[in-house]
Amino acid sequence: MVDDDLIWERVKSEGGPELPLFRVRFDFMRHPQRAQTFKRLVLEAEDWVNVVALTSDGRSVMVEQYRFGIGELTLEPTAGMVSAGEEPLAAAKRELLEETGYGGGQWHYLGAVQPNPATQNNLCHHWLAQDVVAVQPPAPEDGEAIRVHLMTLEELRGAIAAGRLRHTLALSALSRVYALWEPRA
Amino acid sequence: MVDDDLIWERVKSEGGPELPLFRVRFDFMRHPQRAQTFKRLVLEAEDWVNVVALTSDGRSVMVEQYRFGIGELTLEPTAGMVSAGEEPLAAAKRELLEETGYGGGQWHYLGAVQPNPATQNNLCHHWLAQDVVAVQPPAPEDGEAIRVHLMTLEELRGAIAAGRLRHTLALSALSRVYALWEPRA
Repeated sequence: MVDDDLIWERVKSEGGPELPLFRVRFDFMRHPQRAQTFKRLVLEAEDWVNVVALTSDGRSVMVEQYRFGIGELTLEPTAGMVSAGEEPLAAAKRELLEETGYGGGQWHYLGAVQPNPATQNNLCHHWLAQDVVAVQPPAPEDGEAIRVHLMTLEELRGAIAAGRLRHTLALSALSRVYALWEPRA
Repeated sequence: MVDDDLIWERVKSEGGPELPLFRVRFDFMRHPQRAQTFKRLVLEAEDWVNVVALTSDGRSVMVEQYRFGIGELTLEPTAGMVSAGEEPLAAAKRELLEETGYGGGQWHYLGAVQPNPATQNNLCHHWLAQDVVAVQPPAPEDGEAIRVHLMTLEELRGAIAAGRLRHTLALSALSRVYALWEPRA
């Protein structure tokens, strides 16, 4: 496959306004097939992680919390940001322990996805943790309020059908572990 | 399920700096369990759409393009933004026609997901379009450079394994149609 006529050239970059969570950058990109340059927004972010954590009786350790963007409660596997200098796996274990109090278990890497390649430069890494156990009380950060739920696959499917579980990155991780939907093709 | 102790109260909102694609807002949110207020970033956006479009011989109409955030070529189903006053279904049909030249077919709504409920207020609507046909040459916008690929499920799995198809929203739509991964639980 010849891709050269699809690859844009970066002419220059500029910093943008200050935001929390993201560093704003503008790239001036030359169209690969025409002498035309376009200003494109890039939101730089640390990598993200999430983890499908299963207890020995096969239930998923899920967190319910208010999400400020959508303005609703969501159900999700534990998720968070990788801190500077931290390994993604260490971040996933830290977030699971902080948000739910669960730890231990056997960890398997499920791969990484691009949360939004059109504007963001980061990846979200997915893990499966099997046979996790409650090792301490949850210790969420000051800016968090979280309720833990242990859910069967049937309950996860019910939450999806009810519209309470539709965070793309949550579904992305869960769909590597469970058959959430009937195939249509 | 009692959720009141998870729901934050919005004390006030402020506009943020100008960005393309997103309107920046800051919400000042009161913690549901403590007398403490936190400033939270919200990126307001129009809803997004994407469509798994299948030809009558069962191949997916996919687009390859350079994505400015990640700085790489991606493979994805056709996707785009809903314009002001436009129905999401009309947006999906418009984007498919513009980016690939395919149209017609039987359309089935697959549901909506939250691209990033932590910071964004929008949804991405997924469709399945069966038996689409090439009706005109592709007519991408000035700021786009796109190559169309017709791909079998086997080829999609190969692209996922090779890391060429890992846009979360692309995988989210495809996973409603295909069994992309072996279940692990």
